[in-house]
Amino acid sequence: MAYLDHIRACNNFDSKGYRSFEVENTQVGWIAEEFAARLASWPEIFVHSEASIALASHLKDFDSRSEAVLGPLQELLKGDYIEAWRGEFYPVTADWHADPVMQIERAACPYFGIRAYGVHLNGFVRKLDGLYMWVARRDPHKQTYPGLLDNMVAGGQPIGLGLKENMIKECGEEAGVSPELAATAVPAGLISYTHLMPETPKGGVKPDQMFCFDLELPEDFQPVPVDGEVESFHLWPIEQVVETVRDSFEFKFNCNLVIIDFLIRHGIIEPDSEPDYAELAHGLRSGS
Amino acid sequence: MAYLDHIRACNNFDSKGYRSFEVENTQVGWIAEEFAARLASWPEIFVHSEASIALASHLKDFDSRSEAVLGPLQELLKGDYIEAWRGEFYPVTADWHADPVMQIERAACPYFGIRAYGVHLNGFVRKLDGLYMWVARRDPHKQTYPGLLDNMVAGGQPIGLGLKENMIKECGEEAGVSPELAATAVPAGLISYTHLMPETPKGGVKPDQMFCFDLELPEDFQPVPVDGEVESFHLWPIEQVVETVRDSFEFKFNCNLVIIDFLIRHGIIEPDSEPDYAELAHGLRSGS
Repeated sequence: MAYLDHIRACNNFDSKGYRSFEVENTQVGWIAEEFAARLASWPEIFVHSEASIALASHLKDFDSRSEAVLGPLQELLKGDYIEAWRGEFYPVTADWHADPVMQIERAACPYFGIRAYGVHLNGFVRKLDGLYMWVARRDPHKQTYPGLLDNMVAGGQPIGLGLKENMIKECGEEAGVSPELAATAVPAGLISYTHLMPETPKGGVKPDQMFCFDLELPEDFQPVPVDGEVESFHLWPIEQVVETVRDSFEFKFNCNLVIIDFLIRHGIIEPDSEPDYAELAHGLRSGS
Repeated sequence: MAYLDHIRACNNFDSKGYRSFEVENTQVGWIAEEFAARLASWPEIFVHSEASIALASHLKDFDSRSEAVLGPLQELLKGDYIEAWRGEFYPVTADWHADPVMQIERAACPYFGIRAYGVHLNGFVRKLDGLYMWVARRDPHKQTYPGLLDNMVAGGQPIGLGLKENMIKECGEEAGVSPELAATAVPAGLISYTHLMPETPKGGVKPDQMFCFDLELPEDFQPVPVDGEVESFHLWPIEQVVETVRDSFEFKFNCNLVIIDFLIRHGIIEPDSEPDYAELAHGLRSGS
């Protein structure tokens, strides 16, 4: 296998059989044909055209849009979409910095292909004999990706919190990093992909943007699992990280991309020796 | 203006009015309709279809292809394309790591839209009061982009030389950096764009991949112009670099992208405060 297999595993979505979901003439998601057919029962809310499903233009603001879709979503809950209402709402935006155009029940997001945002941290140590990286082993009882390897800290981006602010919060909650130390994390770029979610059999889609941070840690620092997301932390020589990412699927699918980006930025994956270098550089941002 | 204006300035090519140039069913360039019409005089070499110009399949190897196009190019030299034969040949490849499928006279490359490869160096110094970057002022008598600002070291990538090897060579030739110091440069990623060349009135196109390196320099290091490409070198506080890139076109067009990428990787452009962060991350690799 090759690094590129991780790019492919993340970008396993094919827009064939999907329509663009649009609000105010801007695409904010993807809807599968089958789900589109179900939404046809509410023509006063969902306007169908050949290539898109648009929210009706009489729904002019955040509140009216968010409210209008509630009824249909509750109907669909009774059917075979949206198994459990989570009562948690995600913002719908064309960009992290744009004002959300509406909000939507979290469990419904994959069926509208709403973009998710997250923060991921590369925690590393420079020792005399080279670079080391802290990797996390996910809790074996976690609902998603139990027992897989993970970045030292990572989390979804809630609305109303800054990215760095969220990173510092997650650092404390997941790894026991003090706010002072976490604040020295350096933002280092953005990765994007569009993922067909295998855990949603009805073709849920997750376009994702991951904001990456690097945190250089002192040699004597030891992360501690706090909130139960992580079972254990391990400090690996970078060669072990390289081999594990390159030769296996032991890391949660999207964490591989965060590490590949780190390896490229730190000159560990080199353009002279990596034949897929250009394809990797492009592929790490092949989402929207 | 905004950082994005530099992404736009580099990616000013629109494929409308162009056809894909293909060898062995793989795109290796772009040809304008007008030039395509001229190539129609050699149907045994250039096979025209609606969307592409393909090199005839009976031309099976590097030598036969390279030789076959020489005649037409010499004919066109007499006409109004290709003003001066430079006797320098560029490789035609689908990727830096792929074997070249043919070579082509340098002066003809823009009309076939052949991809160029280059190496660019961010030379920087960490002082107690922050980060500084070495910037170069191009010679005012240089044929291309005279007097503009430039990365500390940059150069086209010739065939038969490694990327790092070429970087070390250019470091010596352009800035008097010793091979030992230049060898500490760290590869840090790749940038791509597709540029309609304003200096070729007949619609020449340059798809480009720039391999970026970071070189941390000691405080007492002083680059020295050696080969006359650079008039002078200046050590700027990073804030001055930020302002110049953000607010002006004083740097040669593609050097802005190399610096924007550096600023993102080093956390100087931050996702919380830069509204175009995601668009920049994608835009820096919007070529092929």
